[in-house]
Amino acid sequence: MVNVGIIGSAGYTGEALVEILLTHPGVRLSYASRKSDLTLPVSEIFPKFGSRTGIICGPTNLKEAIAKCDLLFLALPHTSSMAVVPKLLAAGKKVIDLSADYRLKNVKVYRDYYGVKHSDKTNLQKAVYGLPELYRNKIKGASLIANPGCYPAAAILALAPIAALGLADLSSIIIDAKSGVTGAGKKIAEGFLFSEINEDFKAYKVGVHQHTPEINQVLSKLAVKKVKVTFVPHLLPINRGILETIYLKKVKGKSSKVKLTELYKRFYKKEPFIRIKEEGAFPRIKDVSGTNFCDIGLKEFDDNIVIIAAIDNLLKGASGTAVQNMNIMYKFPETLGLF
Amino acid sequence: MVNVGIIGSAGYTGEALVEILLTHPGVRLSYASRKSDLTLPVSEIFPKFGSRTGIICGPTNLKEAIAKCDLLFLALPHTSSMAVVPKLLAAGKKVIDLSADYRLKNVKVYRDYYGVKHSDKTNLQKAVYGLPELYRNKIKGASLIANPGCYPAAAILALAPIAALGLADLSSIIIDAKSGVTGAGKKIAEGFLFSEINEDFKAYKVGVHQHTPEINQVLSKLAVKKVKVTFVPHLLPINRGILETIYLKKVKGKSSKVKLTELYKRFYKKEPFIRIKEEGAFPRIKDVSGTNFCDIGLKEFDDNIVIIAAIDNLLKGASGTAVQNMNIMYKFPETLGLF
Amino acid sequence: MVNVGIIGSAGYTGEALVEILLTHPGVRLSYASRKSDLTLPVSEIFPKFGSRTGIICGPTNLKEAIAKCDLLFLALPHTSSMAVVPKLLAAGKKVIDLSADYRLKNVKVYRDYYGVKHSDKTNLQKAVYGLPELYRNKIKGASLIANPGCYPAAAILALAPIAALGLADLSSIIIDAKSGVTGAGKKIAEGFLFSEINEDFKAYKVGVHQHTPEINQVLSKLAVKKVKVTFVPHLLPINRGILETIYLKKVKGKSSKVKLTELYKRFYKKEPFIRIKEEGAFPRIKDVSGTNFCDIGLKEFDDNIVIIAAIDNLLKGASGTAVQNMNIMYKFPETLGLF
Amino acid sequence: MVNVGIIGSAGYTGEALVEILLTHPGVRLSYASRKSDLTLPVSEIFPKFGSRTGIICGPTNLKEAIAKCDLLFLALPHTSSMAVVPKLLAAGKKVIDLSADYRLKNVKVYRDYYGVKHSDKTNLQKAVYGLPELYRNKIKGASLIANPGCYPAAAILALAPIAALGLADLSSIIIDAKSGVTGAGKKIAEGFLFSEINEDFKAYKVGVHQHTPEINQVLSKLAVKKVKVTFVPHLLPINRGILETIYLKKVKGKSSKVKLTELYKRFYKKEPFIRIKEEGAFPRIKDVSGTNFCDIGLKEFDDNIVIIAAIDNLLKGASGTAVQNMNIMYKFPETLGLF
Repeated sequence: MVNVGIIGSAGYTGEALVEILLTHPGVRLSYASRKSDLTLPVSEIFPKFGSRTGIICGPTNLKEAIAKCDLLFLALPHTSSMAVVPKLLAAGKKVIDLSADYRLKNVKVYRDYYGVKHSDKTNLQKAVYGLPELYRNKIKGASLIANPGCYPAAAILALAPIAALGLADLSSIIIDAKSGVTGAGKKIAEGFLFSEINEDFKAYKVGVHQHTPEINQVLSKLAVKKVKVTFVPHLLPINRGILETIYLKKVKGKSSKVKLTELYKRFYKKEPFIRIKEEGAFPRIKDVSGTNFCDIGLKEFDDNIVIIAAIDNLLKGASGTAVQNMNIMYKFPETLGLF
Repeated sequence: MVNVGIIGSAGYTGEALVEILLTHPGVRLSYASRKSDLTLPVSEIFPKFGSRTGIICGPTNLKEAIAKCDLLFLALPHTSSMAVVPKLLAAGKKVIDLSADYRLKNVKVYRDYYGVKHSDKTNLQKAVYGLPELYRNKIKGASLIANPGCYPAAAILALAPIAALGLADLSSIIIDAKSGVTGAGKKIAEGFLFSEINEDFKAYKVGVHQHTPEINQVLSKLAVKKVKVTFVPHLLPINRGILETIYLKKVKGKSSKVKLTELYKRFYKKEPFIRIKEEGAFPRIKDVSGTNFCDIGLKEFDDNIVIIAAIDNLLKGASGTAVQNMNIMYKFPETLGLF
Repeated sequence: MVNVGIIGSAGYTGEALVEILLTHPGVRLSYASRKSDLTLPVSEIFPKFGSRTGIICGPTNLKEAIAKCDLLFLALPHTSSMAVVPKLLAAGKKVIDLSADYRLKNVKVYRDYYGVKHSDKTNLQKAVYGLPELYRNKIKGASLIANPGCYPAAAILALAPIAALGLADLSSIIIDAKSGVTGAGKKIAEGFLFSEINEDFKAYKVGVHQHTPEINQVLSKLAVKKVKVTFVPHLLPINRGILETIYLKKVKGKSSKVKLTELYKRFYKKEPFIRIKEEGAFPRIKDVSGTNFCDIGLKEFDDNIVIIAAIDNLLKGASGTAVQNMNIMYKFPETLGLF
Repeated sequence: MVNVGIIGSAGYTGEALVEILLTHPGVRLSYASRKSDLTLPVSEIFPKFGSRTGIICGPTNLKEAIAKCDLLFLALPHTSSMAVVPKLLAAGKKVIDLSADYRLKNVKVYRDYYGVKHSDKTNLQKAVYGLPELYRNKIKGASLIANPGCYPAAAILALAPIAALGLADLSSIIIDAKSGVTGAGKKIAEGFLFSEINEDFKAYKVGVHQHTPEINQVLSKLAVKKVKVTFVPHLLPINRGILETIYLKKVKGKSSKVKLTELYKRFYKKEPFIRIKEEGAFPRIKDVSGTNFCDIGLKEFDDNIVIIAAIDNLLKGASGTAVQNMNIMYKFPETLGLF
């Protein structure tokens, strides 16, 4: 029985983690904290978990977290994790960080997009990007996992085969992404009020979203050349789910006899959480909502390739992948506790 | 052309007022303020009104408001209006106050429910409760209108004939009310975030909501005896609209030959904004959303009377009635500018 | 390993059953049918379950169902189950019927509310009403379970202690119920289109809903006297969840020293799926959505008692309770496979 | 006072037309029909309009429509209008057709996308494409208006300046479009049920939507060369509104000193219903919902141009533009009756 804890458990990602960990047969949820002076039972913060856990949740006490846990999940805001991670690692703990702090290897890019200087370059270089479908072997032995961002998780899974196999014009990638509102976390601001979002739809951070360099970094590595995507996110009036519609151009004069759909099926053949639709069929958010799946559909027409990927932003886009990473690290069956 | 202004125009009620006043043929919107240090064009605060008005909106400047307007609408938070009203009245202006400050004649009850002592008892006594269907004659000559609360508007219209004519057991009234989220104003708090309200439904302030004494006050006056309702409001995951399901008992041994539905039709015969459904048919929120109507349906079975009333909380429950009051005060056709 | 099947698996209740049964460690989903000439993999009907089951689903073939299964769940429309149940029982199978066909013991009432004559009075008398909190002992040995309706599940659990212990005026019960749209099943009719329900709210079948006699039957039995509730259901613009606000009067002159909340806690002390809130606190739909819990809150003021109960209509109101019943019948831990 | 009628008034487009026409000061709604054997007052079909119109609505009676009206709006399904239009024109009536029947000049393309042979080529050639911003002069004298499709209205307005002025690589246009559910009409099918669409999001008809050739036809004409866009529509879980995110590439080596935003402002300077946002700012659906505006925002970065356009699909995308066309045809002020 692995003892796990959650630092920053009061947001939507934290809630999703609690939900999985409470039924996961291999772990015991032994610690939970949140940013608040008030110490309350988790069952009171989330009445949904009432009668299912006795864990108490107050401001973070690292000493206690270290004493009680083997593995810590950090569901802290961006720029807060890097103050905590070094201490946990120094105490010999394993860490799965759901913030962006250890994702970008280039600290200059990190500062450009997150607005602060990176304070833990040492561990940054050791951190493993926690996308099991690409980096399973490294995850096995890692101490520090940088859990992927929600948009990048879908985008990278949707584009990895093409990037790795050079199957299209990688300079032409446009990602039109749409996310449910929990993707923004529990931000208390006018823009996230019910009456502002309900019956509305909008783009935001057009061309400048902080997930862009994360996508570029991983795709560039796969393609072994610089990839720069055009990324435009939108806010959907739903709670959970991301759907990304991705547009690329075929490479002129270079056509494959094998359909992309077929190549994708081969690429992901052994992956338990990737499902490739039949050619021309596309996933919808409902197909993956509440699950750890990433469903992908492809269509080729004229010189276009359209790829659509769908995930649950709180699961495959955050807490689900985090638990999948934990399963790999602790040699549990990879799907344990996940749906 | 009457010059009107809105003090506190940045909330949902203010927005609804701007929308009506911009197309109302008898008035000119000459002033708008909001609680913010930032002075911005109304067309920037509400891009919807872009290119339709040049009004600038900054922190309230009473001198300017008085100089530019004949009539002021106050869409301020409760307990803020009573600091402003005396000055406007002293300057000879007419005021339609959409807050609760001048609705409750009993200052002790006001303090119990709104938590502060009333500071303007003089004008409180002169204020006319602005429900045109009941108090049209007084509204005609009034200087200060206390515009009804949203829940009370529907509840009182649904119960006025019964209260006035003594048609049921008035000690048995239960009002199960459901409101869209704009009813709470633009409150920036966790409880009003999209992801908290979407796919949820809940009761709040069970038995202690501040609109209860307002309903009791008006019904008691109509019935000429003390009426005390049981009132339980709920929060609907929609933007606009209130539906109230009201339960009463018939008076034992005292049955009327004429159906209640028929009596209601007679009572409201000349009212342009009240529609009584056929016996056993009930309104839904869609029937009144975006309109100034209050639709009412009734059904009698066994010893029960069930009445359902629906209004748009921002129109008949706030800004629509406010404009209706203005129309009466300025001898415009009562439906002018209203749908 | 118990072999189970679902007859009528293409609706929302069927989908919820598939979802639970696929992860339940004690059973194998061995058969599924639906009303359609088309035979398709379940993973195609519900892409969500893609890669998780190989079950094929076509028109019902009772012979196959009987050959493959020990227990059959019937998620058929009302009036369809009673044609199937006798054959399954005759073949020695156990049956959990989620339709209304075996709930009402009085066949005249059944005909009044469901419009057809009951064709299986023999089994009707043997059927056990499947509310574990009240009838656990009978469920243990039953062959035929009449699984409760969604509204009655919440209403009965909310009122059972009061009815059984005589704690209030049982002639005064008013149930104002609100349900998410899946409660109506997958009905393809104008009234259930997205644009008709979104941003709307309405009452329906006021005083005449078919769940009324079901509630009356159980409460009357518990109270050992005739109970007749006033029941008004409403349609919420959400997918899942029921919240019922229940009003009763205290018995005059008969006041208990012990708060109702305390008595409810005692009554349900050992129940794994009932949670009683602290006095004056009330559940919201989010607390129970996706779970098999029924959360109940109570408040007493003046001569009023207000009780609010919340359940997930597809789980505690249908498929969750059905699996709970199965767990009892097969001596599994009662919470197995349920959240 | 112009006498107008609506043929096919029971859908969402018809409802929006009724709403506008009832308050339009220049017309009298003199006729309404719908596809149904039942003849009912419009106020019963749409209780919202109760007490506001006495019009009766039954199956279409062309003789009556012709006798009572000067102008007929056809809100019929695609392929139904072309059976009616010749008769109305022959009787000397003016027609604004909201179906697709008279939009595509190429009958082969019409058959490919709408599945039937065009039966009225004569009038097809005379029909004027009713986008006032581009074809105002032709609309003035037209007898038959082909009112634009909802997606094309936004797409063409967003791209017209670029197409007309040759400001970008027109071979690179990708339109990622998202529409509220009323865009599909009142289709009674499983896919449009509330529980299917709520909390979901999906693409449909990827690369093959019937509005694609309509967009191509108009843009090609403006550009005086063949333009072929990539068009992918998606279904938003909201009632009203379209937002289209459009991606193009700049022409290499050809850069303008003037920002696109500035050029768009000049192009649309006199248009009452087009609003161009400041460079880098984008519209959201709320800005245009309930209005006849098309709001457009642009951003240039690297070699990308991103344009976002938002309209209300029932107004600027259908009935609003239809009334705008009527205003032009009858020399009313162009904005009369529109918000």
